[in-house]
Amino acid sequence: MTPQNKKIPRMSLERLPIYYRTLCNLADDGYQRIKSAQLGKIIQIEPTTIRRDFSYFGDLGKSGYGYDIGHLIEIFGMILEVNETQGLALIGVGNLGRALLINNFRRNPNLEIITAYDADPAIIGETINDVIIQPLADLQADLSTKQIKGVISTVPSHALQLVVDYLVECGITSILSFAPEPVNVPESVHVRYLDLTTEVQNLLLLAELG
Amino acid sequence: MTPQNKKIPRMSLERLPIYYRTLCNLADDGYQRIKSAQLGKIIQIEPTTIRRDFSYFGDLGKSGYGYDIGHLIEIFGMILEVNETQGLALIGVGNLGRALLINNFRRNPNLEIITAYDADPAIIGETINDVIIQPLADLQADLSTKQIKGVISTVPSHALQLVVDYLVECGITSILSFAPEPVNVPESVHVRYLDLTTEVQNLLLLAELG
Repeated sequence: MTPQNKKIPRMSLERLPIYYRTLCNLADDGYQRIKSAQLGKIIQIEPTTIRRDFSYFGDLGKSGYGYDIGHLIEIFGMILEVNETQGLALIGVGNLGRALLINNFRRNPNLEIITAYDADPAIIGETINDVIIQPLADLQADLSTKQIKGVISTVPSHALQLVVDYLVECGITSILSFAPEPVNVPESVHVRYLDLTTEVQNLLLLAELG
Repeated sequence: MTPQNKKIPRMSLERLPIYYRTLCNLADDGYQRIKSAQLGKIIQIEPTTIRRDFSYFGDLGKSGYGYDIGHLIEIFGMILEVNETQGLALIGVGNLGRALLINNFRRNPNLEIITAYDADPAIIGETINDVIIQPLADLQADLSTKQIKGVISTVPSHALQLVVDYLVECGITSILSFAPEPVNVPESVHVRYLDLTTEVQNLLLLAELG
């Protein structure tokens, strides 16, 4: 990670995982070079956007000749730290949490839920996919022995702010929340919201309005 | 739904569900009016953005006096069609699909998974939360008797394009896919992608880059 990465626009960074995955698939299929127009067609992103995004990571392509796929994979992989497994903590092991724990990013060797927490005494102690469900109060101690890079929360809205306050207190700086209500966190903490209802409503709305 | 809605920017439409839900919560708590600055603080959106978004739906507020919450709820509810239950079909009843079916948008009375399909003979015929799992080939016939407004797909990448081709053939125009790989569809069909791996990778990346 070099300091100049700080200038890369957020939207460009958000496209990195799809670039990375698509390029890995192409490499697996034996491709060595690709032009922005071809890549754009596969992932449905404008070639000019792709060229601009790639330019933030250095001069990686030659006009009319395309990009070296292996080189791009190396650079993007370094930025995404795909060679290092990133440990995650799951908070909330209801239906959705359970599904996440069973799947546990199995198609992505660099992400792994390594600890799980719930408030329900009936499920604390249960093991799912080799992960023991613990009381949330154990998180602080776990952080001193385990490399937890971020938290996935399926905690419902009414309990979320309390849980998030505790996470912040523990020093967690990355939270993905499946509840739609925004939570209050210090500026140094990153929260992403992933609400299925909002996603479906937006989908239907956009389809309706054409 | 009035024709002038067609001019409303996509980003403004995407914020409608969060506006709607927050205003409903405020109304439940007995509030009748709110200023953009107050609302902005709750949902962490700039007041100028809120005022601009609201202006697309007519002149709804008075300077210094704020917005009428009931009026906003009525208008936004009409646009979101929250009074009408929107039926959804679920394709793919693995761990994630099962969790979606068990939860089934229970906190949102206007969204409901009403049919579910899978390719696995071992689970076809099983009933989850009152929905029977059917073979995908039944979808075409179901569409003639049931109001299915959109599809949620948890179908893995390798099978997805085939399934999507069938959905398009059946006349489905709204698809939410949990697989990251883009699919080819005609322009009239809307696809949203919701990939958990991408979400988590982006979260960790943004936290890392500050």
